[in-house]
Amino acid sequence: MATQAPGRWQAIAQTKQQAIIDLIPEKWRISTPLPAPAELRDCTGDYIQQYLTPREVEITEADAVSITQQTTTGAWTSVEVTEAFCHRAAVAHQMVNCLHEIFFDEALAAAKALDAYFVTHGKPLGPLHGLPVSLKDQFHIKGVETTMGYVGWIGTFEGKKNDPRARTFESELVKELRGLGAVLFCKTSVPATLMAGETANNIIGYTSNPKNRHLSSGGSSGGEGALIALRGSPAGFGTDIGGSIRVPASFNGIFGLRPSGGRLPYEGVANSMDGQNTILSVVGPMATTARSLKLLFKSILEQDPWNHDPLVHEIPWRSSVESKFLSIVNESPPSLTFAFLHHDGVGRPDPPVSRAVRSIEEMLRRQGHQVSKYLLFDIYATPCWMNVDVKKIIDWCPPSHNIAHAIAKEAFHMDGGEDVLNDLALSGEPQLPQCFVVKAAHMTALQISDLNIRKRLYQKAYLDYWNSTSELTRSGRPVDALICPTAPHAAVIPGCFRHVGYTSFVNVLDLTSAVFPVTHADKDSDLLTPTASAGNLNNQHENMTLDSDYNASIYDGAPVGLQLIGRRLEEEKVLCLTEYVSRLWNELP
Amino acid sequence: MATQAPGRWQAIAQTKQQAIIDLIPEKWRISTPLPAPAELRDCTGDYIQQYLTPREVEITEADAVSITQQTTTGAWTSVEVTEAFCHRAAVAHQMVNCLHEIFFDEALAAAKALDAYFVTHGKPLGPLHGLPVSLKDQFHIKGVETTMGYVGWIGTFEGKKNDPRARTFESELVKELRGLGAVLFCKTSVPATLMAGETANNIIGYTSNPKNRHLSSGGSSGGEGALIALRGSPAGFGTDIGGSIRVPASFNGIFGLRPSGGRLPYEGVANSMDGQNTILSVVGPMATTARSLKLLFKSILEQDPWNHDPLVHEIPWRSSVESKFLSIVNESPPSLTFAFLHHDGVGRPDPPVSRAVRSIEEMLRRQGHQVSKYLLFDIYATPCWMNVDVKKIIDWCPPSHNIAHAIAKEAFHMDGGEDVLNDLALSGEPQLPQCFVVKAAHMTALQISDLNIRKRLYQKAYLDYWNSTSELTRSGRPVDALICPTAPHAAVIPGCFRHVGYTSFVNVLDLTSAVFPVTHADKDSDLLTPTASAGNLNNQHENMTLDSDYNASIYDGAPVGLQLIGRRLEEEKVLCLTEYVSRLWNELP
Repeated sequence: MATQAPGRWQAIAQTKQQAIIDLIPEKWRISTPLPAPAELRDCTGDYIQQYLTPREVEITEADAVSITQQTTTGAWTSVEVTEAFCHRAAVAHQMVNCLHEIFFDEALAAAKALDAYFVTHGKPLGPLHGLPVSLKDQFHIKGVETTMGYVGWIGTFEGKKNDPRARTFESELVKELRGLGAVLFCKTSVPATLMAGETANNIIGYTSNPKNRHLSSGGSSGGEGALIALRGSPAGFGTDIGGSIRVPASFNGIFGLRPSGGRLPYEGVANSMDGQNTILSVVGPMATTARSLKLLFKSILEQDPWNHDPLVHEIPWRSSVESKFLSIVNESPPSLTFAFLHHDGVGRPDPPVSRAVRSIEEMLRRQGHQVSKYLLFDIYATPCWMNVDVKKIIDWCPPSHNIAHAIAKEAFHMDGGEDVLNDLALSGEPQLPQCFVVKAAHMTALQISDLNIRKRLYQKAYLDYWNSTSELTRSGRPVDALICPTAPHAAVIPGCFRHVGYTSFVNVLDLTSAVFPVTHADKDSDLLTPTASAGNLNNQHENMTLDSDYNASIYDGAPVGLQLIGRRLEEEKVLCLTEYVSRLWNELP
Repeated sequence: MATQAPGRWQAIAQTKQQAIIDLIPEKWRISTPLPAPAELRDCTGDYIQQYLTPREVEITEADAVSITQQTTTGAWTSVEVTEAFCHRAAVAHQMVNCLHEIFFDEALAAAKALDAYFVTHGKPLGPLHGLPVSLKDQFHIKGVETTMGYVGWIGTFEGKKNDPRARTFESELVKELRGLGAVLFCKTSVPATLMAGETANNIIGYTSNPKNRHLSSGGSSGGEGALIALRGSPAGFGTDIGGSIRVPASFNGIFGLRPSGGRLPYEGVANSMDGQNTILSVVGPMATTARSLKLLFKSILEQDPWNHDPLVHEIPWRSSVESKFLSIVNESPPSLTFAFLHHDGVGRPDPPVSRAVRSIEEMLRRQGHQVSKYLLFDIYATPCWMNVDVKKIIDWCPPSHNIAHAIAKEAFHMDGGEDVLNDLALSGEPQLPQCFVVKAAHMTALQISDLNIRKRLYQKAYLDYWNSTSELTRSGRPVDALICPTAPHAAVIPGCFRHVGYTSFVNVLDLTSAVFPVTHADKDSDLLTPTASAGNLNNQHENMTLDSDYNASIYDGAPVGLQLIGRRLEEEKVLCLTEYVSRLWNELP
């Protein structure tokens, strides 16, 4: 693979960048540039609405469940819904740079066919009939390309020239979405390499946060996060190997689900470091409400993905588990047990994040549920993994998250960066600073085996710890869910993402985790107190900047989401409890 | 780890070998040595019965289901049943060398406690109350050691000296068996390294086949196979990474199940090349009847192994699948579809094996089920993977098994043999010729990723092929099960195991496969005809001896079992259909 001549990649990238803009119909172009972030921090809500008709606002601010209630009954046509979202997505892209591929014409044609289907058959094609769904630019869709942010992938199939699959091959999830009646209309931005907590690449540039344009939309599913936050899409799918669904969900104030491996099909999806199977990337939904996550997740399972993806387990949607927890959440007195991890011992959360955790904990305690501060007093008597006053800052006392953090780091660097460096070399483009992959030696087979064993032992130790909590709960069940930060900061200042451990431990353990929005950084409430700035408990851990660069004024308005974590393959429970906790939170006076 | 001085390992091995014999009570010793195999080929049945009382014969020749019907209702005491099996196992070991660990005293104490439990509570402890269960010597059991056939592991924990887990740690499956009321009484022989289709090691020597003492008991769960064939145990557990449950099941004329990964717990089990996670070894039951496999498999699932093994999926026994197939097998006209793989294109089956496949195919066709010779005619029109007359020898025309064979070989040699060579070096003992691991360079991370991708693509292609058969079946379902050889030969002449591909493709694909006994080699019927000896279709494939050394007279009496294979995680269906096919076969006039 010859490297392109210097200067050449910039031209290719610029042509592609312009081609994306050119696909936006003239009528949807924003003629005047947006004010600078200092003048216009938040471009969601009122601001973006000015470009839309009231009817378009009505449609695009409905969630996926409401939309399908209308489209599957014929109350709204697919064409009208699709057009509204295409319009809003086009505006969103011009504001925050969140799209890689636009195919509104194909979307409108598909919508027309769905409307015709409804007329002919008097019923919808499937549960997602007429629902626009956006996809992260790793999914292959007929008619458009997949660059995954690499200049060298433009005009190829995953970097391979003259491959007949280019613009023709479709990922399994895409086929299933079509079978369910969903309308695909755009693909969203990712950081080249995918290994970053922010979204930037040499093709489209930087994807900003729509709630606070000073900040990042997160990564690697940052385009999905920003687009959905702007209501340019009601729901979409991202992927997550270290936090790539959850970080952008949290940073954009939306919901996201990281299922355990083997529930949703990854078959035929482009990826970085494909074949690394110590920690598998997974596909998961992102949306504006918890119930929309459930709609998407459950609908895909209705397509029996295990018959088409050899890595998916045959576990259909388990209504019995959902019913069990629907009944438990309504029990009186309340009987749920929530554990809280306020601090993972590596990266201290910034004030808005700590406030979010404390607020949810306080709410659930007042509601009468058992929360871990009281739950785990017995464990406080035993040696804990950190030499700190656990009563003050730690409630959940599992095997050290330092171990998980180290395992994830090794797994992500297994091939010494060779895969991503090869893909960058295809065009000669430089690596962006946000990518955390560094060049190193390949691990050998025996080193990889050793890593796999350490990972399994850690999983076992964490599982045993979680089981042990049943001795301390009123319900007799082990802790129902763990609630913790998604990152040590709210939506982050570009270049300042400092610790991925709050999400990556979930990937190491292969747990189920849903992110729900909680609050926004507030420059008046969230001040860095002397205590809070005392630094990190373990700042020798690695050469990552662990000291907070929290700045109350810049962060003001940045969304903060939290994770609600269940055990492996507990998606039904996690979705049910996330909807419950989020509803309680929104109903608070 | 310093290598032992020459001569030292022999003394350690001999002491251990004698220690095993010494644990057999004097009253159960066989005073005169067995006649040579030339005089006494088969030591099962009548021959071993001479050492037992009629009551002991009655108990030990009952299958696990019948035994638990007696022990869970109090009709038979656990002590009587345990004592009968301990006696028979002791005799079996003296005949074929099949035990590594004997702990009859502990077993009898456990049986006594179970009897007391029954008296006190008026009910059994669990569904396996009072059932003796043998385990391959990879499972850790309190009070005894795990050598796994390595001299260097004697007196250690998995080769580690002074490790507090030695003789105290228990594997997860062991704990679950105790919870179900099973009585553990012995651990069975394995080949050192586990990577062999025969069972031999430098501690106990060679485990012979009880049906034909000239031959091998198979491997690596060869001790289980031989012991169960002699009815020295009603049921046990082996492990399978390339055929290690199925080969000994086939060679010993018993039943064995290789479940897909993630159903039964491997947690805390010793292994070779642990941490290699391209092809995971799995745990599975072996027994004298198909229904006994189901009893063991289903009982373990009742212990919720997913709560204790982080790699087990939460998939309880699915009665609905079982009921569906119980009803399908009774449909009239018969509606099942069976595909047959007579030859995998690599290693030509010997006459007894071909006869077994043809016999089952003929029986199912006569029964009115659809079988693949007629099923797949449409596919014959398309280019097949081998340039041969498929109508004559191939009925199932999947992606080439050569690919699977190569993938398995690479996976098993990922670390260049380092793990097993290190374990052999602990004592300085030599590698036995049956082990197929050879010293080579480690694969690098990128090579391993590439292998993982090829494996996934092969799995996907095979799945798509299997799905495609639904267009050709009367039922509209894809082929219900594939039936094929377990090895190209019946129980094999020592040193002559020549092709593991009939079992290892199942591991590459992670399918569910059950072995059922079909026939025995017959020196008069199973002659090597000129056509049959024409060699292999692809004898350049590798340096393994693929030419048959079939010898009708030596093989006479050797058991032949076949595999009944379902898709990934289809254990309920596979167990149901195996019981059905096996019953039909046994009821044939």
